[in-house]
Amino acid sequence: MSKPVDIAPATGKLGVLTPGMGAVATTLYAGVLAARKGLAQPYGSLTQIGHIRLGRRDDARNPLIKDFVPLASLDDLVFGGWDAYSDDAYAAAMKAGVLEPHHIEAVGDELRLIEPMPAVFDPKWVRNLNGVDNVKPAEGTKMDQAEALMADIDRFRSEHGVERVVMVWCGSTETYKDLSEVHMDLESFEKGLKESHPDIAPSQIYAYAALQSDVPFANGAPNLTVDIPAMVQLAEERGVPISGKDFKTGQTLMKTIVAPGLKARMLGVRGWFSTNILGNRDGEVLDDPDSFKSKEVSKLGVLEQILQPELYPELYGELYHKVRINYYPPRGDEKEGWDNIDIFGWLGYPMQIKIDFLCRDSILAAPLALDLALFMDLAHRAGRKGIQEWLSFYYKTPQHAPEVYPENDLFIQLAKLKNNLRQMMGEELITHLGTEYYDYEK
Amino acid sequence: MSKPVDIAPATGKLGVLTPGMGAVATTLYAGVLAARKGLAQPYGSLTQIGHIRLGRRDDARNPLIKDFVPLASLDDLVFGGWDAYSDDAYAAAMKAGVLEPHHIEAVGDELRLIEPMPAVFDPKWVRNLNGVDNVKPAEGTKMDQAEALMADIDRFRSEHGVERVVMVWCGSTETYKDLSEVHMDLESFEKGLKESHPDIAPSQIYAYAALQSDVPFANGAPNLTVDIPAMVQLAEERGVPISGKDFKTGQTLMKTIVAPGLKARMLGVRGWFSTNILGNRDGEVLDDPDSFKSKEVSKLGVLEQILQPELYPELYGELYHKVRINYYPPRGDEKEGWDNIDIFGWLGYPMQIKIDFLCRDSILAAPLALDLALFMDLAHRAGRKGIQEWLSFYYKTPQHAPEVYPENDLFIQLAKLKNNLRQMMGEELITHLGTEYYDYEK
Amino acid sequence: MSKPVDIAPATGKLGVLTPGMGAVATTLYAGVLAARKGLAQPYGSLTQIGHIRLGRRDDARNPLIKDFVPLASLDDLVFGGWDAYSDDAYAAAMKAGVLEPHHIEAVGDELRLIEPMPAVFDPKWVRNLNGVDNVKPAEGTKMDQAEALMADIDRFRSEHGVERVVMVWCGSTETYKDLSEVHMDLESFEKGLKESHPDIAPSQIYAYAALQSDVPFANGAPNLTVDIPAMVQLAEERGVPISGKDFKTGQTLMKTIVAPGLKARMLGVRGWFSTNILGNRDGEVLDDPDSFKSKEVSKLGVLEQILQPELYPELYGELYHKVRINYYPPRGDEKEGWDNIDIFGWLGYPMQIKIDFLCRDSILAAPLALDLALFMDLAHRAGRKGIQEWLSFYYKTPQHAPEVYPENDLFIQLAKLKNNLRQMMGEELITHLGTEYYDYEK
Amino acid sequence: MSKPVDIAPATGKLGVLTPGMGAVATTLYAGVLAARKGLAQPYGSLTQIGHIRLGRRDDARNPLIKDFVPLASLDDLVFGGWDAYSDDAYAAAMKAGVLEPHHIEAVGDELRLIEPMPAVFDPKWVRNLNGVDNVKPAEGTKMDQAEALMADIDRFRSEHGVERVVMVWCGSTETYKDLSEVHMDLESFEKGLKESHPDIAPSQIYAYAALQSDVPFANGAPNLTVDIPAMVQLAEERGVPISGKDFKTGQTLMKTIVAPGLKARMLGVRGWFSTNILGNRDGEVLDDPDSFKSKEVSKLGVLEQILQPELYPELYGELYHKVRINYYPPRGDEKEGWDNIDIFGWLGYPMQIKIDFLCRDSILAAPLALDLALFMDLAHRAGRKGIQEWLSFYYKTPQHAPEVYPENDLFIQLAKLKNNLRQMMGEELITHLGTEYYDYEK
Repeated sequence: MSKPVDIAPATGKLGVLTPGMGAVATTLYAGVLAARKGLAQPYGSLTQIGHIRLGRRDDARNPLIKDFVPLASLDDLVFGGWDAYSDDAYAAAMKAGVLEPHHIEAVGDELRLIEPMPAVFDPKWVRNLNGVDNVKPAEGTKMDQAEALMADIDRFRSEHGVERVVMVWCGSTETYKDLSEVHMDLESFEKGLKESHPDIAPSQIYAYAALQSDVPFANGAPNLTVDIPAMVQLAEERGVPISGKDFKTGQTLMKTIVAPGLKARMLGVRGWFSTNILGNRDGEVLDDPDSFKSKEVSKLGVLEQILQPELYPELYGELYHKVRINYYPPRGDEKEGWDNIDIFGWLGYPMQIKIDFLCRDSILAAPLALDLALFMDLAHRAGRKGIQEWLSFYYKTPQHAPEVYPENDLFIQLAKLKNNLRQMMGEELITHLGTEYYDYEK
Repeated sequence: MSKPVDIAPATGKLGVLTPGMGAVATTLYAGVLAARKGLAQPYGSLTQIGHIRLGRRDDARNPLIKDFVPLASLDDLVFGGWDAYSDDAYAAAMKAGVLEPHHIEAVGDELRLIEPMPAVFDPKWVRNLNGVDNVKPAEGTKMDQAEALMADIDRFRSEHGVERVVMVWCGSTETYKDLSEVHMDLESFEKGLKESHPDIAPSQIYAYAALQSDVPFANGAPNLTVDIPAMVQLAEERGVPISGKDFKTGQTLMKTIVAPGLKARMLGVRGWFSTNILGNRDGEVLDDPDSFKSKEVSKLGVLEQILQPELYPELYGELYHKVRINYYPPRGDEKEGWDNIDIFGWLGYPMQIKIDFLCRDSILAAPLALDLALFMDLAHRAGRKGIQEWLSFYYKTPQHAPEVYPENDLFIQLAKLKNNLRQMMGEELITHLGTEYYDYEK
Repeated sequence: MSKPVDIAPATGKLGVLTPGMGAVATTLYAGVLAARKGLAQPYGSLTQIGHIRLGRRDDARNPLIKDFVPLASLDDLVFGGWDAYSDDAYAAAMKAGVLEPHHIEAVGDELRLIEPMPAVFDPKWVRNLNGVDNVKPAEGTKMDQAEALMADIDRFRSEHGVERVVMVWCGSTETYKDLSEVHMDLESFEKGLKESHPDIAPSQIYAYAALQSDVPFANGAPNLTVDIPAMVQLAEERGVPISGKDFKTGQTLMKTIVAPGLKARMLGVRGWFSTNILGNRDGEVLDDPDSFKSKEVSKLGVLEQILQPELYPELYGELYHKVRINYYPPRGDEKEGWDNIDIFGWLGYPMQIKIDFLCRDSILAAPLALDLALFMDLAHRAGRKGIQEWLSFYYKTPQHAPEVYPENDLFIQLAKLKNNLRQMMGEELITHLGTEYYDYEK
Repeated sequence: MSKPVDIAPATGKLGVLTPGMGAVATTLYAGVLAARKGLAQPYGSLTQIGHIRLGRRDDARNPLIKDFVPLASLDDLVFGGWDAYSDDAYAAAMKAGVLEPHHIEAVGDELRLIEPMPAVFDPKWVRNLNGVDNVKPAEGTKMDQAEALMADIDRFRSEHGVERVVMVWCGSTETYKDLSEVHMDLESFEKGLKESHPDIAPSQIYAYAALQSDVPFANGAPNLTVDIPAMVQLAEERGVPISGKDFKTGQTLMKTIVAPGLKARMLGVRGWFSTNILGNRDGEVLDDPDSFKSKEVSKLGVLEQILQPELYPELYGELYHKVRINYYPPRGDEKEGWDNIDIFGWLGYPMQIKIDFLCRDSILAAPLALDLALFMDLAHRAGRKGIQEWLSFYYKTPQHAPEVYPENDLFIQLAKLKNNLRQMMGEELITHLGTEYYDYEK
């Protein structure tokens, strides 16, 4: 039993700011508001529903996570956000079509009060969006935009009397762009902001503003937002946590569940074909090949990192992995992912697995956004700064220290997360060794 | 770093005896013989293909498991078995129709030498089998039968010059029967053997013979074979490992992969409908409702134990779980499992998952039988006696100490298995905490 | 161009009486009432939505069927029924859970007025139903029950001022019972009614009452209701149309779509495995093996009659066909049918088809009930008496003349139906020969 | 009963020439050769396996089609072809990987004798093919190429002593190109050939050569080959039959089976998403967007023509139809098509159908090529010239007279084909009216 970490208490209100007030963000707001009133349950949220085993298996100690670690309470959350469309959260939720109208109406009064602050927006970075009507003026530099965002954060803090703020990116996927010089250290980045360097994405401006304002930043999209050296440096210098990237929902979630299972059993994989149909705004944005590129890189990586073809060339060295996303309006937010997996086993005999996941994009994403808000705030209060790899559980492409490979296996990620909580609270780590129940010693 | 356990070396030959020489056993034999000749690879076998991570993530120490722990080599295995049909392993493999003829021919000479010893067989315990022609005489008591099996084992030992023997049950599923008085302690059981008590199943006679002969026993079927107090007592008294029950393949394998994933994400499950079509001898036997009962109990339990409805009544308290097995001759051994899973998430919104697994029953089972043979032998040499819960990874219904619940989550089972290996060899256990790569301390 | 048939006009109101006021019947009532008010469309109904091609392909004559043949208008329908539960149609629709509450509310006032007449009910014929509270007294003979039903019909006729009445069986599936002597001619049947012969099913009492009251009878369940010689004789003697049996919805519908396609292409079928999950009252009743037997016979027959194994022994002679129905409450009326079809083609190479139909039982059945009501009334007015084989399109097991085999191919059934309509109206029959558009003659 | 058509007898040998000697053609050759020897059955071929009903349903007259109409016998077929690769049919069949080696070996001697004539080939029309080594010299005009092909045909005729020849295009899909002036009449086309007009595709040169040599031409690919006014004119002038285009196999076959079924039942369709994975040469060629365009046009059209949105705007007016083809090497020729269909019924309630077709491209196509060869020859002998719409059954995009719409419904196509055969032989056409079995007249 180690010594518990010193964690500042979760007193006062916690502001949760989301760049992007579309389907995911409004599903998050409405759900938390409804849960607060006891109208619905925040299923899917580990912080709200999950228990954690402590001690021996026969101790029967399984407290709720929220009773075990000092998290902010749902009652203390205050939501705000930015969006390029001026709809308030009520109107945006209705347009998103994720929740049934009666669920939205039940918290309609609170939702109408959440009006989007004007967004930092650039059509070069997010295409296929038309009629945006709520963007910050284009004149001035990117640094000016960052400062405007910092002013927004300050105003939000004081208007709502919040003690702490976290930011969770719930905006669209930006087009793909590799790292360039401007991202390599903080000095170059700040110079780039002042010169409005074209390689600096809007999401990076938000992240900069957040970190400068001591606001932890969690990135729900596949953009390289805080996953650049300059931002890691800034986070460490200011002692603020960052994490990312890309909420792990739908097909990739299934992939990081099933792939570890196949690998556990040493079953080879010759091919994995994944196709998606979805009809929401996300689908529309991803119909643009450059935005899809960001997503594809994020989606393709997971298999390789889980299956370790370098260790298992005979099982995974020839894997043909293809991911397709298709804009298909009849379904709206009710995304469907179909996977065909060509595997082989003993003596090389082939077998097949087909998985059809009729999911709901934002229903799966909203609880992740909530958990990240609460855990990032916890990390901040626990003095953890920089990359929060222990939150890999939530991401398609977990951000990690440069010297180690990422963990994409959902189950390793969960073990990591829970052992981190145990360690923070001074509880024994769980190894599942289990020899203590048997008389194995000679 | 703890002290390594003292393990006797794996010198000499290891006999692997299988009660049952049908599809699974002959696929095991043929595969090992082919692998030995370099004709095919034993994919699916963790002992042969798997690596194990040691130390820190950036240490890059990932030896093969078989190079890390002292396992018997494939070259040292000698196969034998009992079967109620007199076909030799070549003929039985051809009839089973699992492997293509050219794979069987390639090791035909060796297979023809493996002739089944006459089986202890009782049609009351395995129905739907006709024309059996290789059974031990019915006169005499069940104790006589046990002694005949012990004599078989002795003869096998001396004829083949094997140093050690393990037994892996690869026979049919016996009809369902609850525990009764006769199973409750060793004395009653031995009395029952002498009186030919009707509640003592053939598989229990094999297990008794094995343990009395210092042969570890692994149970690949759902029968209550070594999973009875009398057998646990005998195993402990004689210092022999036992483990069971029911090879985890096909649909249940997928279930113990997917269910932990849903639970990790705190997604509720309202219903899980599983249906199977298969046309092999296993399908024929399971067409008998009493045999199916054994299987059903084994298959139904896993969800409850993984999902913990007592901790999560709102998520899993109402789960409707139904498992169906259908004899469907057009497919032979190429079993297909179709699952429909009705889940719900944030605010209770419903989603669905369909999984269609076009698998091959014996191709999935054979490597498990191999791994169990090797690990049970390792456990014996390492002085581990009685229940080997650390081998839960291989079983639908893992046998465990009475005071703890079983672990059915495939990923916890794998962590358990690997940490047990690390512990045996004095390596540090892996917790996935991972804080060592970050500067988290204030 | 032949002479049109003489058809009495569809003047006045048409009563539609349904034995059974459960999911199907109330979905029918509510849908017609809503369509009448323009609140929703009766999709799925050929009589309301369908067009019919007349003349040459380049004539572009495609009137609506309801404008082509003189059908009763939706505005002239009056609904009534019998049920063993006393819920009015509003309450029953709410319990059935097929339609969303707002759809039911929109026609709630009319639905509340439809109160079930007490049913002729016998728990020996429909099991698994508890708490019935609206049945006719058990004293008296089955003939007394028939007369009570005739009195009900008369009273309905006069109370609602309807000119004509049709009866559509929407009740539960009765347990399976083969034909016996009592069904073989009218005299035996009437004697049986007077003696309360145990082989006479409740549905047969309804059918007898209908025919004696000059009410055409359509049978939506698999019971042998009008499909017995005595009833055919009565229908012909009184000049009343009958048809049956078992609404063709869901999986069987798909089967009669896909099987003709495979046969058209001369693709062989080795196996066809069909499983269903459903959670409505129908599922509950069919959980009883004897009720399932009725359904199974009805479902199994279609493949054999479509594929003609006697003509194609090499393609269909070995077909293994298995149908399973599983009561699975999580889904309610939202039935799901999964089919696996093992086919083979050129040189015998195997292929597979999987079909997953996420359907809604009553949504598929209600328009069939409507069409049958309207077409049976048309047939009556057109002087067609006895078996109406031209309505095979609607049934899993179409009733047919003893000297011919039934047609189960959905497309032959549709051609038959439409050519019958053309013939009634004196239009040319369509053969799809199509040589008239080409200069083929030398 | 009409007068039979005058048909020349099928005496002597019939040459079957295939431009393209890849997977489909070699599967055709090998299959016919094997069937001839009684080694395997030509399942999937209507001409070889199919029966045809004649007269009343109770006449029980169901001869084999090949016994009913005077078709060439399999014993009289002689195969030949052109290909851009110089592999003989044995080598090409082995590379295609469709048939198991033992099937190819069994007719290996005959296959080795079928050597490809040098092809007319142009990489601008078929991309993604590398290393072609058997093409006609590029010098000279397209007319010169046509004449070289005519010389090939003549030589084939005399060398093999064949009485008649048919040509079936089994080559790759050419890139998409709309009609232009050069295709509008024969004069322009011949001028274009002489000037090597860039809009004239290689397949059109083959078709021109065929028709000029009195060889009927059937087009198995989606190219606009004979589907241009110039070619229709030439076919009519010379009295030669033509038909096309694009063999109806796999996913489109399923689509033209299922869509008519949904329409028969007046079920609406909101969306139809079709994706394919395949790894053969066809998949490689279709990875080129321009070749895919040809295929896509062909695949997309069928739904619109079957569902008639102009007649049923409320059911099919909003249908979102998307077709994807993905090159996925792990599967080779074992193509898989997955369809998701979003339908709606009564009152607009949504339902879904998923179809997963694990098929084999060339196994499905080969019998179509055979039937077309035999029926095109029959048509020629029966004096039918120009477009053979009665063979629509075989094509994704059936060629038809300009004044009528095509029939894509597989069941209408089959009725058309069979009634054409009946008409040729003077048998009564079948309408499925079926009133003759009932006493319907007053």
